[in-house]
Amino acid sequence: MEGRRIRLTIEYDGTGYCGFQDQGREDRPSIQATLEFAWEKLTGERLRVVGAGRTDAGVHALGQVVHLDSNTRIPVDRIPFALNTHLPRDIVVLRAEVVEPTFHARFSASSKVYRYLWFNRPIRSPLFEHRAQWVPEPLRIEAMQEAARLFIGTHDFAAFRSAKGSAKSSVRRILDASVTSDCQPIIQFTVEGDGFLYNMVRIMAGTLLEVGLGRTEPEDVARALQSGVREHAGPTAPPHGLYLVAVRY
Amino acid sequence: MEGRRIRLTIEYDGTGYCGFQDQGREDRPSIQATLEFAWEKLTGERLRVVGAGRTDAGVHALGQVVHLDSNTRIPVDRIPFALNTHLPRDIVVLRAEVVEPTFHARFSASSKVYRYLWFNRPIRSPLFEHRAQWVPEPLRIEAMQEAARLFIGTHDFAAFRSAKGSAKSSVRRILDASVTSDCQPIIQFTVEGDGFLYNMVRIMAGTLLEVGLGRTEPEDVARALQSGVREHAGPTAPPHGLYLVAVRY
Repeated sequence: MEGRRIRLTIEYDGTGYCGFQDQGREDRPSIQATLEFAWEKLTGERLRVVGAGRTDAGVHALGQVVHLDSNTRIPVDRIPFALNTHLPRDIVVLRAEVVEPTFHARFSASSKVYRYLWFNRPIRSPLFEHRAQWVPEPLRIEAMQEAARLFIGTHDFAAFRSAKGSAKSSVRRILDASVTSDCQPIIQFTVEGDGFLYNMVRIMAGTLLEVGLGRTEPEDVARALQSGVREHAGPTAPPHGLYLVAVRY
Repeated sequence: MEGRRIRLTIEYDGTGYCGFQDQGREDRPSIQATLEFAWEKLTGERLRVVGAGRTDAGVHALGQVVHLDSNTRIPVDRIPFALNTHLPRDIVVLRAEVVEPTFHARFSASSKVYRYLWFNRPIRSPLFEHRAQWVPEPLRIEAMQEAARLFIGTHDFAAFRSAKGSAKSSVRRILDASVTSDCQPIIQFTVEGDGFLYNMVRIMAGTLLEVGLGRTEPEDVARALQSGVREHAGPTAPPHGLYLVAVRY
């Protein structure tokens, strides 16, 4: 049987992981290594899983996409069920499809959707621990909405990247960005872009939170976009409020 | 300073606990003992905390109520913040109020509201693990809604109690009971009653699920209510889908 390229859509609770990829930390496994280990238990194949988004430690995914090349004879529609029996309870395969050999989980993606959640109440929530950033102070939702809209379009996001990133260009196109508050006390920031720099969504979220708290104004976000100076943007929001929602092709 | 009776409203993730009260199990602490330990660390007082609902191991609370008698000089409005610094991340005090000495968290309650969550999707969810019962099969929501309505009113719930319960009468008044599906894939069963027998909400939920799965019909729920025979009701749903939402006085 010829090898096939298979695309998997996966959901995970990132709390127990060092991130999608191994970072040389030994304390927690990576999502990637856990998927590869489950695949080997299922098929006997040792192979490499390539992910669309390299989520950090503690970041969650509702629709991460990976690809792999396999000779397995397992019918593709049986793969989610079969693989899930070998995966821990905090990772699950939602879908499996055979794709063209030229498909690449990361390079073929036309856009990715991320969401950041704040739990906005004076007192922290045990039930949203590890699921949303707790913000005890009241938030200026309309100012956050105004600031989020400034991200839309093609901009140089030099101020919204971590020094650890290695991408050459910091120009990215944001297709949509919005803040919604219709599930209070949860406040959501959703952003879709053709690509994201290292820590970009978390810096966007940290910047919007500063606006929400009244420490900066939407104009300061415009200034950060124009200047490209990291210090003009807000702090990097913690990972546990971030979700990779979907990857589009 | 005179002793005062204080009422606390608390939220918790019940996953790591043996239940609200100690059951003689040594593997996990109780919510009650954890609250008492935090109170002692804060005030030096060793006292007993009395809860409104004795939630089982794994059951969560959004609005459990407890009372205690204390000589602390800490202003009552400072108690949530002060006590929360001594509580683990999976328990939190939302409110503290001084109440009449005759107030009793359990006996003064006029009604309690519970909610049961199902995660209804062919594939399990890592992000709702320990938060909702996973149901992979499609559900007949309208039949569940019809069956839930049968619980409303004053009935003998003998078929909806665990043999372990010790209440003399099994007659209870259900003020409201409904199934909603507007947050799919989450399906919610919400029930308010003047009191609940041991495992009653979990048996109600297990019975509604049987109806949803097409294994029984709403008429069978009516028959279980009339017969009082435990076997005519459904199985006891697992604890991790259950939430004590509020206690009313």
